[in-house]
Amino acid sequence: MIIERLYEAVEARGPVCVGLDPSPELIPQGLLRTAGSLAEAYLKFNRGIVDATLDVVACYKVQIAHYEALGVEGLACYRDTLRYIRDRGALAIGDVKRGDIASTAAMYARAHFEGDFEADFLTLSPYLGFDSLEPFLPYLERGEKGLFVLIRTSNPSASEFQDLSCFSHHRSPITHHEKSRHPLYLHVAEAVARWGERFIGKCGYSAIGGVVGGTAGDALAQVRKSFPSLFLLVPGYGAQGASGRDVAVAFRDGNGAVVVAARSIIGAHRGKPDGDRRFPEYARAAALAMREDIRRWIG
Amino acid sequence: MIIERLYEAVEARGPVCVGLDPSPELIPQGLLRTAGSLAEAYLKFNRGIVDATLDVVACYKVQIAHYEALGVEGLACYRDTLRYIRDRGALAIGDVKRGDIASTAAMYARAHFEGDFEADFLTLSPYLGFDSLEPFLPYLERGEKGLFVLIRTSNPSASEFQDLSCFSHHRSPITHHEKSRHPLYLHVAEAVARWGERFIGKCGYSAIGGVVGGTAGDALAQVRKSFPSLFLLVPGYGAQGASGRDVAVAFRDGNGAVVVAARSIIGAHRGKPDGDRRFPEYARAAALAMREDIRRWIG
Repeated sequence: MIIERLYEAVEARGPVCVGLDPSPELIPQGLLRTAGSLAEAYLKFNRGIVDATLDVVACYKVQIAHYEALGVEGLACYRDTLRYIRDRGALAIGDVKRGDIASTAAMYARAHFEGDFEADFLTLSPYLGFDSLEPFLPYLERGEKGLFVLIRTSNPSASEFQDLSCFSHHRSPITHHEKSRHPLYLHVAEAVARWGERFIGKCGYSAIGGVVGGTAGDALAQVRKSFPSLFLLVPGYGAQGASGRDVAVAFRDGNGAVVVAARSIIGAHRGKPDGDRRFPEYARAAALAMREDIRRWIG
Repeated sequence: MIIERLYEAVEARGPVCVGLDPSPELIPQGLLRTAGSLAEAYLKFNRGIVDATLDVVACYKVQIAHYEALGVEGLACYRDTLRYIRDRGALAIGDVKRGDIASTAAMYARAHFEGDFEADFLTLSPYLGFDSLEPFLPYLERGEKGLFVLIRTSNPSASEFQDLSCFSHHRSPITHHEKSRHPLYLHVAEAVARWGERFIGKCGYSAIGGVVGGTAGDALAQVRKSFPSLFLLVPGYGAQGASGRDVAVAFRDGNGAVVVAARSIIGAHRGKPDGDRRFPEYARAAALAMREDIRRWIG
């Protein structure tokens, strides 16, 4: 089961998830000069980062928007980046945040769980409810794939809807509150945990996990405490403002979460005299420093 | 302003929006045989549909998932389909339902408002709140582009989160209720209407519209009544179950909404003896019948 592989990866190599979100200003000049296109430079850059961090990180998250911005050629680079990660034996999360009606979701499942853009895990948005998730589940039943559903995000406006105080329609099977009020993100977390019950592996975590931002301190602690079987994907570390201490509450016994950093790892070479040439080493050093920063707090 | 163009299109040609959502079983055998690939067949099929319906419909909605399922080649067909629609002078809605943090949203804006995948309107998901929309707004300020934000969708699970009864944080500027409870989708509708105030055109509608399913009868009537400046994109007609009577509540004086049908228009040739050869004529006839069905109820 894929969730066991992620759990083992965290046990063996720690909880860092590298965000492969390239943008023109992060690419070393030398690479830009020798590549035939920006998309080709992105791919070379990503390979360098993956090769240098493979043994010290849990997995990679690839944000499709950064590739889509380069059009069809960029999406070929997205495809090739995912292939490279998986060919090297590492785990790839396709950060696509899809959420659509079932017939459309079935198309997305085909695209991102078996087609050109095959990833091991996908991120999904919950607004359309359970049937927008259902077409992805056959892949989970076979133990091959996993999902991370947005629960509480890391952006400043996240509170606008996600923190609205909502009533349950029915008695909560998990919090055991009847007609209790709690923030929307907790309703979502509860549903995600319920959907994931069928997919809990031997490690104790489900192949349906959740996304909770590291900048959303109380939310992160509350979701972790209330839903022990949810594996958490935690963005927001580093450039977005969350510290090792902030994200530590996402863990149970040093596992059960991965923490994403993009810019602070893949941009670590910037402003260094030899950064252009040695960007993979700077990325590795940044990943190691991040792992230490988190381990200091999770023991 | 793009919203004026959409308004004028509805005035001139009626409120039908054709969903260009091809799938293998909808493509005539003859087209499949002569095309070099499924993606090529999709493009020929789409061109045939567009040519045959251009003068009787308001616009086209292209669901990216149907193309993404064919990988990089499919996305080249998505690009070429959008180009064909716009080159013919018609309006194209890119149905991508993106929703991400601002730095990522900026990448999506670049991809879908100016890059390979340029559309006139995009659909977005509201879960991340206002800052996930902000990077798209400079395009609206220039009058060039528009958005449709999901409010209440047409799928069976839509009620799961969208109908949760939620408290406002503050006094509502539109419904004037203080600390009132209403369903999540109304909170979203109110926010969307507020975000759109700056973009209201001479026609009285904003370049930020909303998506409300035709199968969600009460929700559709309530959103229409409460938020007069919201232009509505209404999916769910035909194959998904909504009738002309159901969607009529979306309109004010025969305008202010477009109703999407995909399968019932682009699949109208199926099962007809001459359907393979004459699929464009069947699509046109279906679009005309749908327009009559809606006009009967909106007068």
